[in-house]
Amino acid sequence: MVTKTIALSHECTIALDDFDDARTIIHNKLHRTPTASASALGELAGVNLILKCEQFQKTGSFKPRGAINKLAHLSEQERARGLVSASAGNHAQGLSYAARAFGAYATIVMPQDAPQAKIDAVRGYGGDIVFAESVNTMFDKMLELQRAHNYTIAHPFDDPYVIAGQGTIGLEIFEDVPDAEYVFVPIGGGGLISGIAAALKWQNPKIKIIGVESNAGGAYFASVQAGKNTRVVCTPTIAGGIVCPMIGENNYPMMQEFVDDVVLVNDDELKDTIRLLLERCKMLVEGAGAAAMAAIVAKKVSLPKNARVVAVLSGGNVDLARLKEWL
Amino acid sequence: MVTKTIALSHECTIALDDFDDARTIIHNKLHRTPTASASALGELAGVNLILKCEQFQKTGSFKPRGAINKLAHLSEQERARGLVSASAGNHAQGLSYAARAFGAYATIVMPQDAPQAKIDAVRGYGGDIVFAESVNTMFDKMLELQRAHNYTIAHPFDDPYVIAGQGTIGLEIFEDVPDAEYVFVPIGGGGLISGIAAALKWQNPKIKIIGVESNAGGAYFASVQAGKNTRVVCTPTIAGGIVCPMIGENNYPMMQEFVDDVVLVNDDELKDTIRLLLERCKMLVEGAGAAAMAAIVAKKVSLPKNARVVAVLSGGNVDLARLKEWL
Repeated sequence: MVTKTIALSHECTIALDDFDDARTIIHNKLHRTPTASASALGELAGVNLILKCEQFQKTGSFKPRGAINKLAHLSEQERARGLVSASAGNHAQGLSYAARAFGAYATIVMPQDAPQAKIDAVRGYGGDIVFAESVNTMFDKMLELQRAHNYTIAHPFDDPYVIAGQGTIGLEIFEDVPDAEYVFVPIGGGGLISGIAAALKWQNPKIKIIGVESNAGGAYFASVQAGKNTRVVCTPTIAGGIVCPMIGENNYPMMQEFVDDVVLVNDDELKDTIRLLLERCKMLVEGAGAAAMAAIVAKKVSLPKNARVVAVLSGGNVDLARLKEWL
Repeated sequence: MVTKTIALSHECTIALDDFDDARTIIHNKLHRTPTASASALGELAGVNLILKCEQFQKTGSFKPRGAINKLAHLSEQERARGLVSASAGNHAQGLSYAARAFGAYATIVMPQDAPQAKIDAVRGYGGDIVFAESVNTMFDKMLELQRAHNYTIAHPFDDPYVIAGQGTIGLEIFEDVPDAEYVFVPIGGGGLISGIAAALKWQNPKIKIIGVESNAGGAYFASVQAGKNTRVVCTPTIAGGIVCPMIGENNYPMMQEFVDDVVLVNDDELKDTIRLLLERCKMLVEGAGAAAMAAIVAKKVSLPKNARVVAVLSGGNVDLARLKEWL
């Protein structure tokens, strides 16, 4: 068997074995989330639809998969220096949760308009929060804190261990839906999709991976158009969990290799999808968590009739007061 | 092994084998719903909490389990005469869904204040609706229609095949949580709890079964107090799915034998629980579907610390417009 491996930035590589290792590490610490067939919603889109339900993961999103795998690979000394990161909220929760499990201290830079539910949850897990003006400035603030305090960075997406952790979702999808033809995955900085896409393509090169971004911050869409990794300025959106001004340096080459297409969705499409998922599937997702499904419902990609399609629902952390406005 | 069987009304009996047969019949027609551990919610109540998620069943509630098992046991002639029933909405959906699968015609009497989502869904599955003034009069209307048209009754709860169908949930709970100590189950007419309680107690006599009713229509609570099966008059509530003026004649002896306690919850407790399940578990349940969980959260029963407790979430069919009012 050919070794399944890909070169990342900085002379680093990642291989299918790293995903299997990550799976062993998170086993018994996190949920093995369910996949659920959604026939009524699938009929609307003319496809055979399966949902991968990461909103049911601990902390309400997929993020602790990568965070736990990262912390497990740090040395005692690196963990003891304290961790720092930047996040619109889900990685902030995932990292705080993981840090607590490893007895480590974590500071996370969050945009000041982050949902209160996410802020409360981070503090509930024992994480410290420093606010940045917006998602556009939070990564600079993270680097500033890292330099000032000699913290260890636990990056939300641009890190091979984080990628391998999120890639465990791809392993689970392949187990549950070995005949999947299309898998739709939200894109923020690229941590989720680069892991899932590699895990799936290494096991079935024919599978199509479709990335979905919010039109309020489509860094990968812009990068594909420009032919190189391109920064964008993010604007306000209900999909705070996936707007990110750039794709990670480690994620970009993986996405070039494994992602077949990228499409944009807007806030109205996300709200429609949140309502549909509540009404038809009795599941709550946040704006970012609805993105993959929204792209399918709004038919952003032409799919063969009755194609076997998986939508990754990435998280469900939403303020009920904001949800009320969307109903 | 002693035969697990119990005598019902009208010289009828039901046995554990009937539950296994029902499981074979519904297999591949319905979902095998997941159980999910809910550690954050469990901490609130001081117990080790597991949710049995019937809101993810086809049609959005547990009801098609019993309806399909009933229809499978009718003769061609009985099905050909057309079916009639009465339901606040979930059995109406379950029966319409089952009738469509068997190519049969179904008329269901529903209270005129039934949620629009349930009305639309019944019509979507091809069921005909006749409205009654309220849940208090709908069973008389069902009998009237049966006599006028010679329909076959597919009762929502007072039927051994319906009980055996709902009992398959008990088989699944025992498989997933063999060490469960307490199982909380909503009570309407008693179809759900009589099936689940028998399935569980026959496999583990030590397990405690707690029934939960809305205070807007606690027929079993009243029956326990009176020492005999007692009718009540139901009043308006958000738990329309479980208010029922009486316990079925077949269900009552099973509940006397297998149900350890019955408690009441009110609408405010149900709304609190709906919000908690959305926020912490990313799951939508209807008022009736929240009842078992509400009894645990509101500590209606004194439970040993860290007891292994299962809450049956029975359905999730709620109008989003009404949900909006509860957020």
